[in-house]
Amino acid sequence: MRAELPTAELESRLSFGSAILRGADCEVYRSDWSSVAGEIPVLSILPASVEDVVAVVRWAVRHAIPLVPSGGRTGLSGGATPRSCDVVVSLERMRRILAVDAEQRTMTVEAGVATQVVQDAAAAHGLLYPVDFASRGSSQIGGNIATNAGGIRVLKYGLTRDWVAGLKMVTGSGELLELNRGLIKNASGYDLRHLVVGSEGTLGIVVEATLKLAAAPPPQQVLLLALPAMSMVMQAYARLRRTLSLSAFEFFTQAALEHVVAAGARAPFASPSPCYVLAEFDHDEAAMSAAFEELAASGVVTDAVLAKNNAEASGLWRLREGITESLSHRKPYKNDVSVRPGQIPSFMLRMDKLFGAEYPGFEVIWFGHVGDGNLHISIIPPAGYPREAFLAQCDRVTHMLGGVLQDFGGSISAEHGIGLLKRPYLRYTRPSAEVELMRQMKHVFDPKGIMNPGKLFPP
Amino acid sequence: MRAELPTAELESRLSFGSAILRGADCEVYRSDWSSVAGEIPVLSILPASVEDVVAVVRWAVRHAIPLVPSGGRTGLSGGATPRSCDVVVSLERMRRILAVDAEQRTMTVEAGVATQVVQDAAAAHGLLYPVDFASRGSSQIGGNIATNAGGIRVLKYGLTRDWVAGLKMVTGSGELLELNRGLIKNASGYDLRHLVVGSEGTLGIVVEATLKLAAAPPPQQVLLLALPAMSMVMQAYARLRRTLSLSAFEFFTQAALEHVVAAGARAPFASPSPCYVLAEFDHDEAAMSAAFEELAASGVVTDAVLAKNNAEASGLWRLREGITESLSHRKPYKNDVSVRPGQIPSFMLRMDKLFGAEYPGFEVIWFGHVGDGNLHISIIPPAGYPREAFLAQCDRVTHMLGGVLQDFGGSISAEHGIGLLKRPYLRYTRPSAEVELMRQMKHVFDPKGIMNPGKLFPP
Repeated sequence: MRAELPTAELESRLSFGSAILRGADCEVYRSDWSSVAGEIPVLSILPASVEDVVAVVRWAVRHAIPLVPSGGRTGLSGGATPRSCDVVVSLERMRRILAVDAEQRTMTVEAGVATQVVQDAAAAHGLLYPVDFASRGSSQIGGNIATNAGGIRVLKYGLTRDWVAGLKMVTGSGELLELNRGLIKNASGYDLRHLVVGSEGTLGIVVEATLKLAAAPPPQQVLLLALPAMSMVMQAYARLRRTLSLSAFEFFTQAALEHVVAAGARAPFASPSPCYVLAEFDHDEAAMSAAFEELAASGVVTDAVLAKNNAEASGLWRLREGITESLSHRKPYKNDVSVRPGQIPSFMLRMDKLFGAEYPGFEVIWFGHVGDGNLHISIIPPAGYPREAFLAQCDRVTHMLGGVLQDFGGSISAEHGIGLLKRPYLRYTRPSAEVELMRQMKHVFDPKGIMNPGKLFPP
Repeated sequence: MRAELPTAELESRLSFGSAILRGADCEVYRSDWSSVAGEIPVLSILPASVEDVVAVVRWAVRHAIPLVPSGGRTGLSGGATPRSCDVVVSLERMRRILAVDAEQRTMTVEAGVATQVVQDAAAAHGLLYPVDFASRGSSQIGGNIATNAGGIRVLKYGLTRDWVAGLKMVTGSGELLELNRGLIKNASGYDLRHLVVGSEGTLGIVVEATLKLAAAPPPQQVLLLALPAMSMVMQAYARLRRTLSLSAFEFFTQAALEHVVAAGARAPFASPSPCYVLAEFDHDEAAMSAAFEELAASGVVTDAVLAKNNAEASGLWRLREGITESLSHRKPYKNDVSVRPGQIPSFMLRMDKLFGAEYPGFEVIWFGHVGDGNLHISIIPPAGYPREAFLAQCDRVTHMLGGVLQDFGGSISAEHGIGLLKRPYLRYTRPSAEVELMRQMKHVFDPKGIMNPGKLFPP
């Protein structure tokens, strides 16, 4: 097939600065941060403008060429991994900040701008782009929108969806849509913007976005708490939330901490505890002290470290944000699930029982954003354990986990998306009637089925 | 047709407490708060349960009966007004509060619960349901969701969309969907919940919702400012916003005030000013005084009244909230438009020029939520002016206004919805490609075309 792609026709339509890559140059588009071993795509196209993207999609429509939209390639579900017959469309050359309106607190950017670049540009105007996560340096706004990225400050600021005032996207028909155009109020029919957010590149390619910005927050404090039991996490959450304005409430276990420390971080406490909570909140010394003393007196918290400056705050954050990276060489199997936050304690008990029974000998590492009802679980096999058998066992247990989630009305993908990896489990979260509606809606946007085929929908 | 509807078949499927109304009992469902003169529907069905609604829709599918979902009937675009061949489905008997979770700050309600009932139930738990508008006593949550209702505190709290954590709806196929189930994070494919919010009953019937609640706000202050010119409104906004945490910033003109005063309200100032701003914000005496003094010194504000207690605050709010009611006996023609907030000054100039040229002799009354970029305009003809000629002129000018909005990338309906009244102007806000996608999406949810036919889409 490679020789047959009519690229000459396309080249003449692309603008200066765009590129078409072949062969070894496409190797980088093979995989993402997930465990999916994609294939080298037949071509990778790097458009330099919105018009380029329109030209690429129309060319693909004419020749029935499957396209895989690509952002910072930090996805954890394989949503941007190609097959060898796919053409990757990478937004990496569309990385201009088009406008910042400090008065109205908006920023308009091309889809390939990195999250951190947006954050820094907002900060330069005394404002905040509050969607944040460990992959901020590589992840791109287009990809964030395609997956409705969440992260560490959802508790206070919500998801990417909540910060998209408008977006431009090219549908699978090659139609350029300019959705909502930054309006706050617009009651003029279906809000297609919100359908595109979280659609994982299956409806079209996001090319530009107008983002809302927040006022810079007051000074923050970062507190690390040691807890004697996982079952006490939500008690700590309820108490802190009562008198502090929390922007983050992150949970991890001693097992997770050990991996981060092994990777070079400094242990925060002299002796281990079963689990930890990292809380970030508006500076309030009195409320913080009172909450800590109450939690300590009731035995919910056994130890604590309060960051005294930004460097110490970063050090504490590294303990939480470094978990994924510290585990990556062990190639863990990952779950990313959610329930309603109030269900977290009973859900954790159910999961703990399930994993205890089904993963004997495997290391089960818990962490996550429990204030949002979101738990990440990484499963690590003993050294030398056969990979296939490990994955088969994890697949089997994830189906059981799916059943538990169905009981709780939870989600098999809280924030990583369905991509390729979670497709077999989608049915535990979305009933067949919803999936069928989704399929038909994809067909409306992408009648030729060229947009990220094979992703999101169960085969 | 009336005699032919096979209601016996339906009656046997409806639960105790439901009702089917005919003839004069249907008169109340003929109109809403808009100027649309609907027809008396052939039947009105008042289901008492979710299962009843499913039964009604499936019955309607079998017999190809057009359904008009009906909430509190406070709509201003005719979105719930029936034709004589329609069957109204009123949610008024489904008005139970099903659950309040004060710890997790959520409330689950049936669709027929009035906005104010939700607000009061939240307040009883020390919490806030922040979506608010003058029709709070009659409007229902289901209707709020169907129109993505906005109102007076969008500035701080956003729209109805932002407070819907989950919803149950019955599609035009009679399928019951339970969308998002109250999850904070759920990256499992297209978020159909957000497609339903604002769909004006054209995709199905919202039957239940899980709403988010906010923490009760700190004490509020209400300040009424007199301004020497409309052109200074955004200067006042920028200055107040710089140091105060605004929850509302409402604008109205002297003409609007005169109608409210004529309807019985007390005039706030001894002498008139061209326009006024009502601002509500977190109590902060020092910041408020400093802002006022600065605005007074620079001539942006010429007078002010600060409410000294709740009764006075209500009195000031009445000046703004009473406008619509004070005008209703004059049967005004209404525009409800939006642009990006930063464009408000130049947009107002364009509109003022347009209206000055095209409405000589008509009274043009401006008010609205300018912090959200949302202006309401009510046009009143001289006494005795022929109704048909008046409406024809307003229609002609609204097409011109549509052209201006198209230039600005604004919306022909900021928060009232398209319904029946705004359909001819939808094209100024949504290009034909988007309307075509919307039509196809409606077809996916409602293949028989029985859900609120004739609404939202241009004929």
